Amino acid sequence: MNIASYKGAYRADFYSDFSFTAEVAQQSHKFFIIDKKVFGIYRETLSKLVGSDLYYLLDAVEENKNVDKALEIMDQMVNMPSKRNTVLVAIGGGIVQDVAAFIANVLYRGIPWILVPTTLLAQTDSCIGSKSSLNFRGYKNLLGYFYPPDRIYINTEFLHTLERKDYFSGLGEIMKCALMAGYGSFRETAGNMEDVLAHKEDALLKEIHKALEFKRNVIEQDEFDRDYRNIMNFGHTFGHALESVSGYAVPHGQAVSYGMMIANRISCQRGYISREMLQEIDTAIWNIVMPELVCRDFFAEALYLNAMKKDKKYTGGQHTCILFDGDGVGKYTDIRDGEIMDAAGRVMEEAGKRLGK
Amino acid sequence: MNIASYKGAYRADFYSDFSFTAEVAQQSHKFFIIDKKVFGIYRETLSKLVGSDLYYLLDAVEENKNVDKALEIMDQMVNMPSKRNTVLVAIGGGIVQDVAAFIANVLYRGIPWILVPTTLLAQTDSCIGSKSSLNFRGYKNLLGYFYPPDRIYINTEFLHTLERKDYFSGLGEIMKCALMAGYGSFRETAGNMEDVLAHKEDALLKEIHKALEFKRNVIEQDEFDRDYRNIMNFGHTFGHALESVSGYAVPHGQAVSYGMMIANRISCQRGYISREMLQEIDTAIWNIVMPELVCRDFFAEALYLNAMKKDKKYTGGQHTCILFDGDGVGKYTDIRDGEIMDAAGRVMEEAGKRLGK
Repeated sequence: MNIASYKGAYRADFYSDFSFTAEVAQQSHKFFIIDKKVFGIYRETLSKLVGSDLYYLLDAVEENKNVDKALEIMDQMVNMPSKRNTVLVAIGGGIVQDVAAFIANVLYRGIPWILVPTTLLAQTDSCIGSKSSLNFRGYKNLLGYFYPPDRIYINTEFLHTLERKDYFSGLGEIMKCALMAGYGSFRETAGNMEDVLAHKEDALLKEIHKALEFKRNVIEQDEFDRDYRNIMNFGHTFGHALESVSGYAVPHGQAVSYGMMIANRISCQRGYISREMLQEIDTAIWNIVMPELVCRDFFAEALYLNAMKKDKKYTGGQHTCILFDGDGVGKYTDIRDGEIMDAAGRVMEEAGKRLGK
Repeated sequence: MNIASYKGAYRADFYSDFSFTAEVAQQSHKFFIIDKKVFGIYRETLSKLVGSDLYYLLDAVEENKNVDKALEIMDQMVNMPSKRNTVLVAIGGGIVQDVAAFIANVLYRGIPWILVPTTLLAQTDSCIGSKSSLNFRGYKNLLGYFYPPDRIYINTEFLHTLERKDYFSGLGEIMKCALMAGYGSFRETAGNMEDVLAHKEDALLKEIHKALEFKRNVIEQDEFDRDYRNIMNFGHTFGHALESVSGYAVPHGQAVSYGMMIANRISCQRGYISREMLQEIDTAIWNIVMPELVCRDFFAEALYLNAMKKDKKYTGGQHTCILFDGDGVGKYTDIRDGEIMDAAGRVMEEAGKRLGK
């Protein structure tokens, strides 16, 4: 698939094995940034791919998603004789992608780079869109820009060794895109979920492709995230708060799933969707969340009042949220604290019940 | 003047006083980065412009043109409540511009910025083109990207207080653009030079405008510096070497002037231009260089053999140079060390004579 971009086009190719590495190996000057854990699991294949090229094994934890880490890696790269002819190859999830995108963007005013996303979340969501985000002095996602990879290789073989929580995290984004495309699209994906949960290759490839196509359509209309692309933040306002207070113990896609359930409850309360539709969607989403990851120390008031304030971006007193209305999503700027508190409270209550079971 | 760009368009407006500040003042959330020296000279006017907004006074020396300085300034900006609504206003020469462009580019994935270039070099050259370059761990211009300002205000009043060497440095770039546009264009600018040296407003504005128009035309054809834009490096290969070995005591435009004279001598030796043309151009350029800035410790062999090697960018054994042929410039990839040595030696000899006078 290709997406037009000021830099050229996104090109994502789909594989269910490592045969794509032959193409990557053809690049003459490479520097690799590889998720340390992924390298451990696929050591034989990846060592062969790296060959005599230089590489950096990144411990993909939130504490390493920052400018200092990027500068540390660049320090190694500037000593390579190939310099601006170097192709950066990133193999890993979102954190590896963020660090690599920043480096490829600013080193020598931009070098080519190849992305091999290894998590379901990166394969369905972050790999296209070109945003990079690094943390800076305690502030999250403060630095970055838009610098899409030149090539993306999606290999579903990586998904077999994902931890369950990370696999579920990707499912949250798949469900998000499905829902944003409307009720019909949601039903289709919900119907596929059993096969996807059973790791059936066909269903999985179909859903990854569907999510990326949806996102591509949005990005094409607003590559630089000026306005329209905001709708991709469906479920994220709450989601970010959840991630944040949990110290990023709650995976992104999981947090977004809760965020969607809260947003949908507000939609229902406002009469944008029926109670029946809400319940049907909730049932599908509860299938792909793991309440044991979020419920502990989870107190709605403290969480939202505190974290939401930081997320209001100082644009005014009321909250801006993306809400689902059955056909798709829209941006609402008049959401009151009370509505959020109420909806969040009910979702938390339900999570507690499920955890108690 | 406007130039198309992926981000929108360059817009440069010309003033001969500070009346433009009224427009800048209209922005509601501003953060200023101002050259410390410039602030000292125009304290009253600039203090009024800054008002109660936050600002950073940058000591515009090469040692501050680096990532650490940019991060230090960003650290102040992230504490501002306006965040991504902040407009960054940069007032200064090339170093202030480089630091500001980098910050505006990567902070919150890009914020708007306004550039007020205060040196003749920045007004005629760097203010359009959108490149940013920061030094990193001892490597020059290693980090940066392309992030043009949203508005550029050129005020020639700043030029009255420029040191002579900095004024002459800008003249080097004016002459470069004039020459690149062909012999007829060169003669026109050379004929204007007496008035420009006398700071006559009309002649000065005309030449700044002419240089920017020329550069705009080149950038429009190759915004991201992939190939064609390389021709703007006319005189720079030698120029960079000169700047480098002098520890940046030789101003950029001055270094480029020497670089042009050396390149033209190679052109003449190869029969691309006549001896008469070479002499006419040399005469015009010697009028705008100050040999006392470059001649000391200036030994052709050490300088070129050493510095040129670094500039070859590992693309092969022979040097790539931009040469003038009477109609304009072209890129030549087959320049031998001997040709450079010979040409440089002769220019150095001439500089020595002029210094002795």
